[in-house]
Amino acid sequence: MPEFMDVHTGMAGITPEGLLEAHNADLAIQGEEGVDFKHAWADPESGMVFCLSEAPDAEAVQRIHERAGHPADSIYQVPVQA
Amino acid sequence: MPEFMDVHTGMAGITPEGLLEAHNADLAIQGEEGVDFKHAWADPESGMVFCLSEAPDAEAVQRIHERAGHPADSIYQVPVQA
Repeated sequence: MPEFMDVHTGMAGITPEGLLEAHNADLAIQGEEGVDFKHAWADPESGMVFCLSEAPDAEAVQRIHERAGHPADSIYQVPVQA
Repeated sequence: MPEFMDVHTGMAGITPEGLLEAHNADLAIQGEEGVDFKHAWADPESGMVFCLSEAPDAEAVQRIHERAGHPADSIYQVPVQA
């Protein structure tokens, strides 16, 4: 299954509780698109959030993020890893 | 130890061998700055590379990346995770 890193901007001030709530909203519906969100990292100062997932394609990742209320700004397939 | 996600751009066409070589160049000297690079994800199409590390501060991350020949474009501290 391909892996993706997606990026959200504009999340300055995000709290652990806020990130967990957003992440759980993804997890609650991800199975409907065959997506598996594995981890999320957030920088409350810059407002950047990075989400790692496995999914059939980038569009599936975005559909889940959109339905959960937080569309990604960019989604990158990351087949090369070290 | 704080964690950081750093972002490199302009790496279009990066291969598994190229990423591993770059990652290993970081690993070879990271101890001199107390940095621990944990994983790197690359998208050969867009040229984006994301590196996750633990480090004393963002400047230490950048010093290692610079000395290894691939300075990051952006470095974000990511204390909030899910």
